[in-house]
Amino acid sequence: MEFNFASRMKHLRPSTIREILKVAEQPDIISFAGGLPAPELFPVAAVRDAAYAALTDIGAPSLQYGTSEGRIGLREQIAQEMERRKRITNPEEVLIVTGSQQGLDLLGKALLDKDSVVLTENPTYLAAIQAFGMFQPRFIPVETDSEGVVPEALEALVRKYQPRFLYTIPTFQNPTGKTLSLSRRKALVKEAERLGLLIIEDDPYSRLRYSGETVPPLAALNPDMVYLSTFSKTVAPGLRTGWIIAPKSLREKLIIAKQAADLHTSSMDQAVLERYLKDADSEAHIEKVRTEYGKRYAVMDKALSDCMPASFSWTHPEGGMFLWVEGPSDLDTVALLPKALETKVAYVPGRDFFPKGESKNSFRLNFSNASEDRIREGIERLASLFKESR
Amino acid sequence: MEFNFASRMKHLRPSTIREILKVAEQPDIISFAGGLPAPELFPVAAVRDAAYAALTDIGAPSLQYGTSEGRIGLREQIAQEMERRKRITNPEEVLIVTGSQQGLDLLGKALLDKDSVVLTENPTYLAAIQAFGMFQPRFIPVETDSEGVVPEALEALVRKYQPRFLYTIPTFQNPTGKTLSLSRRKALVKEAERLGLLIIEDDPYSRLRYSGETVPPLAALNPDMVYLSTFSKTVAPGLRTGWIIAPKSLREKLIIAKQAADLHTSSMDQAVLERYLKDADSEAHIEKVRTEYGKRYAVMDKALSDCMPASFSWTHPEGGMFLWVEGPSDLDTVALLPKALETKVAYVPGRDFFPKGESKNSFRLNFSNASEDRIREGIERLASLFKESR
Repeated sequence: MEFNFASRMKHLRPSTIREILKVAEQPDIISFAGGLPAPELFPVAAVRDAAYAALTDIGAPSLQYGTSEGRIGLREQIAQEMERRKRITNPEEVLIVTGSQQGLDLLGKALLDKDSVVLTENPTYLAAIQAFGMFQPRFIPVETDSEGVVPEALEALVRKYQPRFLYTIPTFQNPTGKTLSLSRRKALVKEAERLGLLIIEDDPYSRLRYSGETVPPLAALNPDMVYLSTFSKTVAPGLRTGWIIAPKSLREKLIIAKQAADLHTSSMDQAVLERYLKDADSEAHIEKVRTEYGKRYAVMDKALSDCMPASFSWTHPEGGMFLWVEGPSDLDTVALLPKALETKVAYVPGRDFFPKGESKNSFRLNFSNASEDRIREGIERLASLFKESR
Repeated sequence: MEFNFASRMKHLRPSTIREILKVAEQPDIISFAGGLPAPELFPVAAVRDAAYAALTDIGAPSLQYGTSEGRIGLREQIAQEMERRKRITNPEEVLIVTGSQQGLDLLGKALLDKDSVVLTENPTYLAAIQAFGMFQPRFIPVETDSEGVVPEALEALVRKYQPRFLYTIPTFQNPTGKTLSLSRRKALVKEAERLGLLIIEDDPYSRLRYSGETVPPLAALNPDMVYLSTFSKTVAPGLRTGWIIAPKSLREKLIIAKQAADLHTSSMDQAVLERYLKDADSEAHIEKVRTEYGKRYAVMDKALSDCMPASFSWTHPEGGMFLWVEGPSDLDTVALLPKALETKVAYVPGRDFFPKGESKNSFRLNFSNASEDRIREGIERLASLFKESR
């Protein structure tokens, strides 16, 4: 049978990162490629207890169809979490989604037509390019510097392209690890307000800060901006539960899109998370993860300093899970990847993170998944490879 | 902030059925509206045991990111289930999705452009209209009779519209409860082959047969057809886990769309289902559900016979969860719904199930959710209402 595929699918190939991840799953590979949390830190016993309690105390409703908006008890707990993050909300404003990845899909469905313009950082989150890409928009990069988006660059782009929104990860950005300062956040939000530009703020990592001062999300500075987050980094990604906070008229459209996409997020996962957040010491768990990832980052940063040729530089994130390396201009990180895999180390070439333009000499390193020893070993191997290939 | 919504969202309103369901959730309402399984039959203890076992024995991987295709162990069990259903497959052919609703969304993404034509039964599954509707196709109804799709009607439609596919629920159709006979299935598949027409077969209910002979799915007659099913009716809908079996070139596109939509289906839900299917007597559970729903259907059918005016007729499904009622031509089931809700009974007016055209005098009744007593009571109240309104 011949298929008449939709035009959006015609040129799509499986993503490089997913294909790499398949190789990188082999246990002998030191993988800096994925965005995997450290599984040995997962609160397995506490989740198991929460599952037992949810199925005992809530019972059948935790296995029944639910509303597209999500379980009210979990939305209440998310509202409490948002208070910690300084974006005051009420549970009715919270829409539960099947991982923040689904949030991106729903926002694309609600806001993008073919050839609509999306402003993004460049590089930006690979899977956001994929999710929005399904709706065939044009991606236009915004100027960034060492912190992130440069607010002054917006006006010309808004006038020229009438973008549907700016998609940004202002805190421990994926893939660069960069964070926007408070003063820059204020300037960005003010400029967006003035220009009538919607900001979609993706915030999966802000609770994973190892150093520096906490900064509020953009959504705390203007509640009209859309805020996306997830339990993937603070509890576990396998539960595929995230949330969107959006103004009412947009939220209503997102709920319709959510109904069409999967009716609602797993009732059991929601009930288990609700119970976990109630019964377990979830803040102590985040503290443990934070401390451990901070150590791993420090080990990676030191190993890079100790081993990499002088022609390489990298970012120095204060949190999150990634840093970004740039080599000499003639480095080809796509061409070198098979050789890296031969030495049993994986990274993601920078290329895939650029919705527009190219970067041959950059790559992303994840430091949350491997142990300190393996991080050191992996960076040594990578450094040797880069030296050899000169 | 003013939003520039995508054109697909401009005229969309929350679905009537969802809004009704919100009212129908009140415990004093006898609801024939939703498609809810009977929660008192859920295998809560067995799922709780499975969750405990999965989190103990599988541990962290049941909380980690997974592949978009799904857990191989669960895909193996689905392949075994497909053997029972006479569509022989191997685990690699199975794609796990977040409920079969997500399957519809992914198929729409992969196969539909704006103004693409989709052939459907008329009436058809409401949420399929919603899922495909996001991609702005044209719905063209196919002629149906007391069994379902009339194969001879396809050729003219295929020649005229070059449809991307026929979407059909051949077994215990939603909303009518109709089932296509084996000889009709053979004719339909043969005609589709001859015309090069892709069939998407949605099969959530086939394991819920109360009477008559089991018929194989269309996909058993031609493995090039796409097959969709779910654990929602045989285990529990809250786990949001279904599957698609599709030929390789289509499956590859669906996997890309799945990555973009939610990366993968909940690892925990998949692990719990895998363990449930391994440890629990899942066939005995299906038998129990089948027997109970069969009784409820019989009670509803008898209550309708006993109470409804002679001008009403209804379908006599051999399984599934729904039957379809048609009243006299001047009946207006949309206008009467608020009155039905006043008497604490809910149904879904037929109107919403028609992608094309209208039906004012029909409605869908669900018989799986309410107890026998409440079914009898609810039908009596409905019958009084219809008599009064004459």
